[in-house]
Amino acid sequence: LLPSTQRDLFDVVLVAPRNPLNIGAVARSMANFGFARLTVVAAYEPHWREARSAIGAPELLQSARETASLAEAVARCTLVIGTGTLTHRKPEQPVVSLPVLGPIAAQELARGGRIALVFGPEKHGLTREDLSWCNLLVEIPTDSRQPSMNLGQAAAVCLYELATRVTTRDTALEHVGNAPAFEQNAAPRFEAQASAASGDLDILAGLVDEVMVAANYSPRTMQEANRHSIRLMLRRLRLNAADQRRILGLFRRILWRLRRSSNRNVPN
Amino acid sequence: LLPSTQRDLFDVVLVAPRNPLNIGAVARSMANFGFARLTVVAAYEPHWREARSAIGAPELLQSARETASLAEAVARCTLVIGTGTLTHRKPEQPVVSLPVLGPIAAQELARGGRIALVFGPEKHGLTREDLSWCNLLVEIPTDSRQPSMNLGQAAAVCLYELATRVTTRDTALEHVGNAPAFEQNAAPRFEAQASAASGDLDILAGLVDEVMVAANYSPRTMQEANRHSIRLMLRRLRLNAADQRRILGLFRRILWRLRRSSNRNVPN
Repeated sequence: LLPSTQRDLFDVVLVAPRNPLNIGAVARSMANFGFARLTVVAAYEPHWREARSAIGAPELLQSARETASLAEAVARCTLVIGTGTLTHRKPEQPVVSLPVLGPIAAQELARGGRIALVFGPEKHGLTREDLSWCNLLVEIPTDSRQPSMNLGQAAAVCLYELATRVTTRDTALEHVGNAPAFEQNAAPRFEAQASAASGDLDILAGLVDEVMVAANYSPRTMQEANRHSIRLMLRRLRLNAADQRRILGLFRRILWRLRRSSNRNVPN
Repeated sequence: LLPSTQRDLFDVVLVAPRNPLNIGAVARSMANFGFARLTVVAAYEPHWREARSAIGAPELLQSARETASLAEAVARCTLVIGTGTLTHRKPEQPVVSLPVLGPIAAQELARGGRIALVFGPEKHGLTREDLSWCNLLVEIPTDSRQPSMNLGQAAAVCLYELATRVTTRDTALEHVGNAPAFEQNAAPRFEAQASAASGDLDILAGLVDEVMVAANYSPRTMQEANRHSIRLMLRRLRLNAADQRRILGLFRRILWRLRRSSNRNVPN
C-alpha cells in the first residue's frame, strides 16, 4: 500500500450520494485501503446522518468534510479525476482506463500535487456540469452488457488500484526532482512543478469571465456556455501554479484597463 | 477484459453466504467484469431464494450451481484459490498478494487449466477445512487497522484484477506451448500440462486413505489429521493429470496387494 503521507494527498469526493449503505461502503473501502479524507457534496441530511451513526461506521465518516459545491470540495486539488460509466455520453475530457491510472497519479504526486477522486450520485452519475471540474475521467473496464457498477464496489476497485499501483518511485518525474544531475537544466524542473489547484483555476476562470463581460465578448445568453468551455479549457491545459499567477496578473491588468476605459469613456 | 472463452474458465464459489445483499453484490460484480459461473456451497435457502428473486438480480444468479460441499464445487478445477484475511491464522498454503495473481492465473489457463476463486462466509471467512481444498491463498493488500473487507467489495476487487490483468499472451508457458522450436525438448512440454483437477486429487486422496487404513499406518484417532495433511500435500505438489493417474494406479495396486494379503492372511 501507499505510505500514509501519500495517501493523505487523496480526497475522495461523493457528490449527492443518496443511499446510506453506499456511503458506508465507500467509507469502509477507504479504511480498508488506508485512505482517510472524505468530502460529501450536497449531502442529503437524513441519509448522511444515518450513514454516520451506523454501527461500525469507520472513523473517517466522523471527520468527513461537507461542502455545498463540487468546486469547493476540490478547490485545493491539482488533479481532479471523475468516475462513472461513459456509455451514453461523449466526454469533453481525456478518458483513461483504471489499470493505467497509477502512473498518472504517481506523476501528479511527484510534482507535489493533490488528487481528488470524484463519484457521482447512484442513479445518474456525475453531470456534465460536475465533470467540467475534472481534469480527466477514469473508466473501470466493464462488460458492455452490464457496465454500471454499484457505488461501493466501484470505489473499492478504484481505491485498490490507487493503493497498490501508485508507486512514485517508478515515475520519471520523481527521478528528475531528486536527481542533482538534472538541476542545471531548467526544463525538467519546470515540468515537475505542481499543477494549479482547482480553486485557483476557478479564480482565474471568474476573472476571464469578468473580462469577457467587460469586453462585450459575446451576448449574455452565451455566458453560461462560455463559462463551461473556459472551465474545461483551463483544466485541459494543466497550468502550473506559476502559469496561473502569470495569466491571472495579465487578466487583472486587462480588466482594469477595460473598466477604466469604459468609465472614462475614452479610448486607451 | 478477458475474452469470454477464458472468463468461462473461472468458477466463483461462495461458501455459506448469509446476507442476500452480499450474494447479489457478488453476482453483480461478476456481471460487471464478465464472469458467468457462480457456485453456492451450503446455501441458506431463505437468503439464497431472496437473493435470486431480488429486482435487477443478474441473470447468472438463475443459472448458479448449488452444491453441498466445497469439494464438489471445485472438483473440476485445477487451481483453487482461497480468499480472505489472514491476520489471525498461519496459512498452510502459499499466499500471494492480489496484484501478482494475474500471471499465475494466466499460466494456469495457458496450461489448459480451470480456476476457482473461493469466498468464505461473511463472519469468519473460510475455515481451515475449506482452505485445505485450496492450492493457494490470495490476499488483498489492506490497511492493518481495517483489514477485513465487505464480501461484495472483496469480490469486485478480485474480479477486476483477474479481468484486467490475466493476459495469457504474457506468459512464458503459452509461448512454450505455441513455439514449434521448443517441441523437441520434452521438459517444457511436460511443464505445460494441465494440473490434475481437484476432484481427481480427492479420488487419489481417498485411495491413499484406504491404503493407510489397510496398512495400519497410524491409529484411528490420527485418520482425520492424516486426511487433512494428504489433501494439502497433493495440492502443494501441483501434480498434472498424468502424475495423478500414475500414482492412482500404483496405490490401487498396493491396496489390492494389501487386501489380498490380509484376506489370505499369508505373506506376499
